[in-house]
Amino acid sequence: MNYSIMIHVLSSVLAFEGLFLLLPCVVALIYGEAEGLCFLAVALGSIIIGGLGRARKVKSKAFYSKEGLVTVSLSWIIMSLVGALPYFLTGEIPNYVDAVFETVSGFTTTGASIMPDVEILSKCSAFWRCFTNWIGGMGVLVLVLAILPLSGSYNMHIMRAESPGPSVGKLVPKVKTTAMILYGIYAFITAMEVVLLMIAGMSFYEAITLSMATAGTGGFALLNSSIGSYTVAVQVIITIFMLLCAINFNVYYLVYARKPKEALACEEMRVFLLIVLISTVVITFNIAGMFDNVFIAFQTAAFQVASVITTTGFSTADFDKWPELSRIILLSIMFIGGCAGSTGGGLKVSRFIILLKSLKNEIVSISHPRSVKRVHMEGKVVSDSIIKTAQCYLFAYVIIVIVSTIVISVDGFDITTNLSAVMATFNNIGPGLGMVGPTGNFSQYSIFSKIILTLDMLIGRLEIFPMFILFSPKMLRR
Amino acid sequence: MNYSIMIHVLSSVLAFEGLFLLLPCVVALIYGEAEGLCFLAVALGSIIIGGLGRARKVKSKAFYSKEGLVTVSLSWIIMSLVGALPYFLTGEIPNYVDAVFETVSGFTTTGASIMPDVEILSKCSAFWRCFTNWIGGMGVLVLVLAILPLSGSYNMHIMRAESPGPSVGKLVPKVKTTAMILYGIYAFITAMEVVLLMIAGMSFYEAITLSMATAGTGGFALLNSSIGSYTVAVQVIITIFMLLCAINFNVYYLVYARKPKEALACEEMRVFLLIVLISTVVITFNIAGMFDNVFIAFQTAAFQVASVITTTGFSTADFDKWPELSRIILLSIMFIGGCAGSTGGGLKVSRFIILLKSLKNEIVSISHPRSVKRVHMEGKVVSDSIIKTAQCYLFAYVIIVIVSTIVISVDGFDITTNLSAVMATFNNIGPGLGMVGPTGNFSQYSIFSKIILTLDMLIGRLEIFPMFILFSPKMLRR
Repeated sequence: MNYSIMIHVLSSVLAFEGLFLLLPCVVALIYGEAEGLCFLAVALGSIIIGGLGRARKVKSKAFYSKEGLVTVSLSWIIMSLVGALPYFLTGEIPNYVDAVFETVSGFTTTGASIMPDVEILSKCSAFWRCFTNWIGGMGVLVLVLAILPLSGSYNMHIMRAESPGPSVGKLVPKVKTTAMILYGIYAFITAMEVVLLMIAGMSFYEAITLSMATAGTGGFALLNSSIGSYTVAVQVIITIFMLLCAINFNVYYLVYARKPKEALACEEMRVFLLIVLISTVVITFNIAGMFDNVFIAFQTAAFQVASVITTTGFSTADFDKWPELSRIILLSIMFIGGCAGSTGGGLKVSRFIILLKSLKNEIVSISHPRSVKRVHMEGKVVSDSIIKTAQCYLFAYVIIVIVSTIVISVDGFDITTNLSAVMATFNNIGPGLGMVGPTGNFSQYSIFSKIILTLDMLIGRLEIFPMFILFSPKMLRR
Repeated sequence: MNYSIMIHVLSSVLAFEGLFLLLPCVVALIYGEAEGLCFLAVALGSIIIGGLGRARKVKSKAFYSKEGLVTVSLSWIIMSLVGALPYFLTGEIPNYVDAVFETVSGFTTTGASIMPDVEILSKCSAFWRCFTNWIGGMGVLVLVLAILPLSGSYNMHIMRAESPGPSVGKLVPKVKTTAMILYGIYAFITAMEVVLLMIAGMSFYEAITLSMATAGTGGFALLNSSIGSYTVAVQVIITIFMLLCAINFNVYYLVYARKPKEALACEEMRVFLLIVLISTVVITFNIAGMFDNVFIAFQTAAFQVASVITTTGFSTADFDKWPELSRIILLSIMFIGGCAGSTGGGLKVSRFIILLKSLKNEIVSISHPRSVKRVHMEGKVVSDSIIKTAQCYLFAYVIIVIVSTIVISVDGFDITTNLSAVMATFNNIGPGLGMVGPTGNFSQYSIFSKIILTLDMLIGRLEIFPMFILFSPKMLRR
């Protein structure tokens, strides 16, 4: 293991986090909040320690896939442990494990909360909470790659480990440029939402916090009612932006590169939107009786479907009280999630398509043992190794969901609550069903279960393998 | 498609079923039950139609994998539709869809019932119900292959389609001899249980019906309390025989062939027994407080674990009232199921091992992209195509469970009930949790949901692919 590069990257991440923490300080300054001092202390500490770590010389440039995976896992753990300090120091979240849960929930864009009342948060803490959603959505290391002059082969290993999806394609040959373009698109979409929300009547503070939470498909909100007490216009804007941010960013790059035809042809986007449409229509009919008219039912259904499939986790209605059909559809689309290369979580639509197509091929080859057929996606042949990885991913996914559900069931809550709590954290959604439904929260779980669910959020965001490798017996023995 | 062989095989199956149906006639004769006439009518009808069908000449010997799969699927559907007639004709199950559900539940060794009160059944019907468990456990077509002089290449295609597990090994070079040995072992184990149960004080009728239901890991019982009102000795005997019948029959063949060392070395058996042991111990501690002493808790836990993992579905206690940890463990081991080449259902232990090992290999190859490692099982290399099929199987499994749960949730029951109803039918177990728990039954579901669950039982028993091919758009278009 090349420890010197690992320390270099980890220090860079820490220093960046220190810089990020200055933003809530500015918010505190504007609104005259004393809590800002806690943020300032943590910010300065991170910048100094990170800066000192970066000053050390990098001895060797040899850096392999495994080191990339371990580095990314460790970066996310350090980021979360440090990012939790301000909540703890201000006393707004008195238990450090809870503070870490909330921070991991932020960075992993889960949006699950252990706070029964989020409205007690100071403005700077609420800002930091939504900012973690935004930075976690695209990935901290992607930002580090975009800005810092890190050269060498290792940046691709890092990018691959942090970016979601079955295969990571660079938009342009250079990793640094790819990272810059991705963040550029991301910032542009976020800015558009801020403008639209302000036109819809929001203050700048509200608009920017909610836009960050939407763009990262995170789902942290300012009010206990989530998005429920805002106007219909605001809800519609947020619905659209949740969907936009769960589409493969490759599509926007193609639009930017003036290739609208290729952009529209994106198979993953089409399947994703089709699932959204079907789910919304079915749920609309299922819940129509609960609303004044079918349009309100449609708008509410669309919001909820978008919120769940994009793994954002905002809510405008208590869908836990909806009929069983609607509840189980929402639980199922949690499983699919957003597109690869977006800020959405879950299994990812492209992985779902690959699995579906390879199943179809398998059925053909069972009935015609001599036929050989390849899986195609986006017009290209999908390599056997990508298919194999996707299939192993599914098995790991199932195992993690089952084992986590068994482990947290020691707290004695019902199966719906436990299963949906695991699904909601592991897929980085936020609210589940039952006691962790839209009107509930995760505070009733024991410290032990909260740690398990925190790990599930990290494992889900980093797509299983990096965390598995970090915690493999071989690594732990070192 | 070679229709002439297909008709030949289907007719043979029908004629065999006619012969089977003579057994309940004998029971009716002994106990002087008028219901026997209904069985006799269906038996004669089946023998005549089957016999006539068999008389037709087989034109060509060319028979491929696909035709084997389709033939097996159709055989099971015809068997179920015919086997349901007596229940319907005697009026004991007045609705034909219910009667088909009950028969499919029998043949697929599920043991789920739509009858709120099974004690109203005549002795001949109760016998038929348990007999369907027995014949379905090892497979009707395997019996046909063992007895009839069907020669040609197609018998292997048929055996492969009906036998459970990721790969079907012939014990000896000839399919016919393999089928005979399998049924010999099966009959021997069943006979042993009959003797032991009679020593424990049961009547011959009770001993033979329960032994058939145990050996097939079916789970149909004579009393509404399932096995709960029998003595501890009976419960222990049944626990042991449920486990015996869910072990790969290859092990017994090795014992029979005087290779005890190879038999004990069976990796699948070891993993299976380990899972049983761990689950039993954890549940014992979890439920100890509910029982007078830890031994009773252990015996009850062992019975329930054996019943669920072997997918039998007997019960001695209402495990739906157990703590959440025990409930979710039982729901999880439903997923794993018995060994390949046994009468147990579920995903199968060997498939689970293959998936686990290929996941481990995948993690190694992600961190060391250049390393090449093979999956080994029972001391042999597992081919890539078996791994791929197992992985596709898992995805199909997940999709079927999710889609079925969505579809039956239109009836409005809770998620635990619906999910466990699908798991219990698809894995051929029987009782689930919630309203379909050990004290409940499937009668409250609508006709529509019952049909879905009936299909799930068939899809689960035939291990997905044969039914998928039967219902593929290509086949339906013919």
